[in-house]
Amino acid sequence: MFDALLAPESIAVVGASRKPGRVGHEILANLIASHFGGEIIPVNPAAEEVLGLRCYKDIKSSGHRPALAVIAVPASSVRSSVEDAVASGAKAIVVITAGFRETGEDGARQEQELAAYCRSRGVRMLGPNCLGVMNSHHKMNASFSKSMPTMGSISVISQSGAVCTALLDLARERNIGLAKLISLGNKADITEVDLLATLAEDEHTNVIAGYLESIDAGGDFVRVAEAASHCKPVVIYKAGTTVAGSKAASSHTGSLAGADVAFGAAFRRSGVIRAPTYEALFDYAVAFAMQPPPPGDRVAIITNAGGPGIMAADAVENSGMRVVPLAESAATALKARLPAAASVANPIDVLGDADPERYVMAVEAAQNDEDVDAIIVMLTPQAMTRPAETASAVAAQVKSAASRPEAKPTPVLAVFMGGHEVLPGRRELVTAGLPDFPSPERAVAALRAMREYAVWRERPPRAVTRFRVNRRRVERIISRNLRVNRQQIGEARAKEILSAYSFNVPEGGACDSADEAVEIAERVGFPVAMKILSPDVIHKSDVGGVRLDLAKPAQVMDSYDLMILRIGRLLPQARIDGVYVERMCSPGREIILGMTRDQQFGPMLMFGLGGIFVEVLKDVAFNLAPITADEAMQMLKGTRSYAMLKGARGYAGVDLGLVAENLQRISQLATDFPAITELDINPLMVGGDGARPMVADARITLAGRGGQ
Amino acid sequence: MFDALLAPESIAVVGASRKPGRVGHEILANLIASHFGGEIIPVNPAAEEVLGLRCYKDIKSSGHRPALAVIAVPASSVRSSVEDAVASGAKAIVVITAGFRETGEDGARQEQELAAYCRSRGVRMLGPNCLGVMNSHHKMNASFSKSMPTMGSISVISQSGAVCTALLDLARERNIGLAKLISLGNKADITEVDLLATLAEDEHTNVIAGYLESIDAGGDFVRVAEAASHCKPVVIYKAGTTVAGSKAASSHTGSLAGADVAFGAAFRRSGVIRAPTYEALFDYAVAFAMQPPPPGDRVAIITNAGGPGIMAADAVENSGMRVVPLAESAATALKARLPAAASVANPIDVLGDADPERYVMAVEAAQNDEDVDAIIVMLTPQAMTRPAETASAVAAQVKSAASRPEAKPTPVLAVFMGGHEVLPGRRELVTAGLPDFPSPERAVAALRAMREYAVWRERPPRAVTRFRVNRRRVERIISRNLRVNRQQIGEARAKEILSAYSFNVPEGGACDSADEAVEIAERVGFPVAMKILSPDVIHKSDVGGVRLDLAKPAQVMDSYDLMILRIGRLLPQARIDGVYVERMCSPGREIILGMTRDQQFGPMLMFGLGGIFVEVLKDVAFNLAPITADEAMQMLKGTRSYAMLKGARGYAGVDLGLVAENLQRISQLATDFPAITELDINPLMVGGDGARPMVADARITLAGRGGQ
Repeated sequence: MFDALLAPESIAVVGASRKPGRVGHEILANLIASHFGGEIIPVNPAAEEVLGLRCYKDIKSSGHRPALAVIAVPASSVRSSVEDAVASGAKAIVVITAGFRETGEDGARQEQELAAYCRSRGVRMLGPNCLGVMNSHHKMNASFSKSMPTMGSISVISQSGAVCTALLDLARERNIGLAKLISLGNKADITEVDLLATLAEDEHTNVIAGYLESIDAGGDFVRVAEAASHCKPVVIYKAGTTVAGSKAASSHTGSLAGADVAFGAAFRRSGVIRAPTYEALFDYAVAFAMQPPPPGDRVAIITNAGGPGIMAADAVENSGMRVVPLAESAATALKARLPAAASVANPIDVLGDADPERYVMAVEAAQNDEDVDAIIVMLTPQAMTRPAETASAVAAQVKSAASRPEAKPTPVLAVFMGGHEVLPGRRELVTAGLPDFPSPERAVAALRAMREYAVWRERPPRAVTRFRVNRRRVERIISRNLRVNRQQIGEARAKEILSAYSFNVPEGGACDSADEAVEIAERVGFPVAMKILSPDVIHKSDVGGVRLDLAKPAQVMDSYDLMILRIGRLLPQARIDGVYVERMCSPGREIILGMTRDQQFGPMLMFGLGGIFVEVLKDVAFNLAPITADEAMQMLKGTRSYAMLKGARGYAGVDLGLVAENLQRISQLATDFPAITELDINPLMVGGDGARPMVADARITLAGRGGQ
Repeated sequence: MFDALLAPESIAVVGASRKPGRVGHEILANLIASHFGGEIIPVNPAAEEVLGLRCYKDIKSSGHRPALAVIAVPASSVRSSVEDAVASGAKAIVVITAGFRETGEDGARQEQELAAYCRSRGVRMLGPNCLGVMNSHHKMNASFSKSMPTMGSISVISQSGAVCTALLDLARERNIGLAKLISLGNKADITEVDLLATLAEDEHTNVIAGYLESIDAGGDFVRVAEAASHCKPVVIYKAGTTVAGSKAASSHTGSLAGADVAFGAAFRRSGVIRAPTYEALFDYAVAFAMQPPPPGDRVAIITNAGGPGIMAADAVENSGMRVVPLAESAATALKARLPAAASVANPIDVLGDADPERYVMAVEAAQNDEDVDAIIVMLTPQAMTRPAETASAVAAQVKSAASRPEAKPTPVLAVFMGGHEVLPGRRELVTAGLPDFPSPERAVAALRAMREYAVWRERPPRAVTRFRVNRRRVERIISRNLRVNRQQIGEARAKEILSAYSFNVPEGGACDSADEAVEIAERVGFPVAMKILSPDVIHKSDVGGVRLDLAKPAQVMDSYDLMILRIGRLLPQARIDGVYVERMCSPGREIILGMTRDQQFGPMLMFGLGGIFVEVLKDVAFNLAPITADEAMQMLKGTRSYAMLKGARGYAGVDLGLVAENLQRISQLATDFPAITELDINPLMVGGDGARPMVADARITLAGRGGQ
């Protein structure tokens, strides 16, 4: 299907103006200049010929059946041009023209109709409002950017045309080849999800690099991106990270999850490498395209000067990777071959007058050392330095080592620091397939991203545990609430739901009178807690709606009457459904578990240690449901307060496995019931080994009619 | 004095070899090539003439009196060459030759002797083991690097010659001029402190950029760097940040202060801007050299495309600065001049077809807006874009606005994203004095550094409070302990010291018998705490040496006897000095205050909220003594747990002013008594407004004989 878009045999350029500078003219010119091998059909009712090619009134009358139509006519004519293309058998359409969704409601409607029309005819549409498409391996520049890249293995998708042009220009300057470049525009039909799926299977693409501002179908994205990441690295720069989520949240979990948290969780889940800066997007893509990910985190540094070696070592250690000494045998052998003043500790200092051969010896020694997982080659331009020859010699050594049958994949990244004088060396590095970086920090950041990708690839297959639960019972409670459009499910019902999913809930019951309260208390056993039941009271304790540790029948009777009396006075409008009486939880560590449903990515689970850790320090971890046991445990480990849970000086540890299991149960509940939009268990009382965590309080929010 | 080094009238090149490639030859060649205007005296006993200049056996016999001698002879001849130079009247000497401290003990000794010799003759020496000196305004390249920079206002000092050459090469490629470049080498005599002081007063230097691996005289550094920062920005990249401090620490404070913490505190105190990466060192220096620091944190972004505008806005918000809308009048006026599709919100989108004029209008509008403190100009290479003309037009606008008498200093930073196509624009920017960056993230990081510098410059004058204390009493206690070489001062004496500095210490006393214990308890009032007094017991509670909340005489007697009995069994070797009995502190929030003496920077104060916050989360703040009231308060605010102290949901606030005052008292104590190397008050019990914090436990360590 996407062959028509990315490697069509023939292309119609609709709106092929005779005027240089006009978008349609430029596209035609670029297509010709890229030596496109297929047929080109210019469409322009006002011209006989453009750029030496015969021109047609419309595609239909041309008698051709182009696989792809690139449309660059005024917005008002786009619809008829699209219809013409579809009628003429085009399988894919690129709408370059702007003036749709970005202009307001009218434009958005027209854009939707356009997309719907194409879909109904089985035709895929890219854009509108985009730069176009390039495929270096197909010699096709169907865009209005002149910068056609050389052939390479990085494919780019971008929601911003300007970022496309900037990356193209950068790639050209650095002499880095690209495979395909696709400008997504308004994503009316074709989205990042379609293109990830396509590029994952594209034989010319080894790395997918993306610039995205939004992701519309979060679930699809995660599924497809995960599959793509299994084939090849996907590096994405996500812009718009600081715009606060617009969704008003009533739960703890909801208010703690910023707009960016869900993207982070989705990228982690799907193995997508997130580029933190624009430069990192390019750096990482180049590193991945040229070198294998490192099998471990031990980095050897080779340098011709002390200072840059220290810089690199700092960067490695700050990144969480390690600078370890060479194995003794490797160090001794290398020492014998280098001048006396050279250092074979790590960093390996081959001295300021190092020739290419000395660099090669050091690289070889590091490659042969079982304790080295990656190599960073630093070079500064000193009097005797031959940057270009050193680059070729090191690259040749890397190539020859990689071709040996027993070779282990030890990536080599180069940092030729300086400017003018090292430029020939940097060019040579790129030509020879070694990634080069202008600073140790940037090389190490790329290496770290490669290591994270390797770790993701090496992780065991995900297996989500399905617990045996009473799903039917939850279905009944939820549909009863949905029927009366009650969105807030209070403590009593929330605990019923959780109990059906085998959470440990204190014994208790709802009552309508003081006598009944005492009855329940006597049945469940003293001491008890009492809590007001009201859909209109969100923060129960703020209005005196919670009484704890009641040890005697008289206290229970007094509490009931006082609670009803005082809340009635304080909130005369509040509907009171009675009072919930339950056996007090045993004291323990308080934990908060929660779930909020992200509009794009679905249920997001939250974990935090209760009290100040959540309330003040916002020390929480998120992940997308469904989660595995390992992912649940990673959430616990992802908080600073994990040290307290594990058991720190003066703090008894808790049964982490049981907390993780409770997270998995929430995951299952949220996955089973899309109607649940938010859920807080706050607190969950947890204890030491084997002590089942107890739900002390809980709240659930359902989607309103029409899906909140 | 430093004129002889940096702007000498005549220079001897000792070791001026005839052989190209030899260091001495290269220095002579570079000096000639740089069009040095003064006299050059080559010294080489084996040559009549080198590079067309008459050569001498030694300086003495030349009959010249060079101000500067640059020495590049073998290490074994350095001493005699230095003596020759001194005898001939040289006021400064640069020793290029390596082979001194970096080779071992012998070399270190020779180096020390060399430095001592020069100092004794009133001559200053740079190096040994350095690249040399450059001064573009004096047309002097007295180094063995060929890359002589063009004239500029950034001066560079570097402890690594390789970093010098890399920076020179980078400056040349980017066409950035430098003023002076000084390679520090082994710093046997001239150090960064000398050069900071000199460059602070240098009229050609507007920015000082430095690469340092170590700072030897910390106190001098802070004093001189602070004075320099008052004149001009000082940007330093400190390498070797991850090497753990080697000093074994017995106190909490000592073990929490890593090697890097003291550097951070020293830089903050002295207004030095710390560059986190190699690229940042250059970026920041260029930004400071070309634009004024912003008067506030509100940033206007001007862009010719949406995506890059979002990137820049993300970067600004992530940096803690703000993207606020233009003032309404400015927005309306600009809107009228731009095409309808343009956006005058912030980012201001001048659209993909923006010509230079449109950029100028937007820059002008932002400059005239009182709510804009800084401007970032983004440009991507689109079809109609004219990068070079846009650069000149924007630069002209910036220049004309700055020349108006009422002009406010609004820095403008440019980000021309791309490669080849924007290069002419980037060159034009630099020529016209606008700093340019390859990515929004790097521009924003530089702007943020400029803002931090402005904030430092605007801070009120530092005034350290001197409290009235009983210094004499502390002197007596300390000298008594020093006399018997007792380094660990236990709780009782430590509290006596603190009490003399007006800390609030519980009433109590030491005793030798159970009866005496009861006597003290009755005097101070029940309940009491009892603690073992022993120089050999560091963690008292671990061995049963602490008993709390004793309410009756019988409990006091029992506790005394049990404590002595059990510790005697557990630690039969421990010297027991008795038991300390004191009135129990009232319960409160536990805080830890401390001090550890850094070898370079002297007393470093620590603050942390007690319990898990220090023990597990390592949530502490450091600053160098002496501190002001404001700096003490900043330390409290510098911890995550500050929210708890201030009073957060469910947590009563404490009297922050009194905690800050206690920190200042420690500051005074540590400053008054250099013999105190470590001090912990752990915990300090603090309460609400007006409640004087109480020292519940304390320990002090003194320097051993011969300085610890």
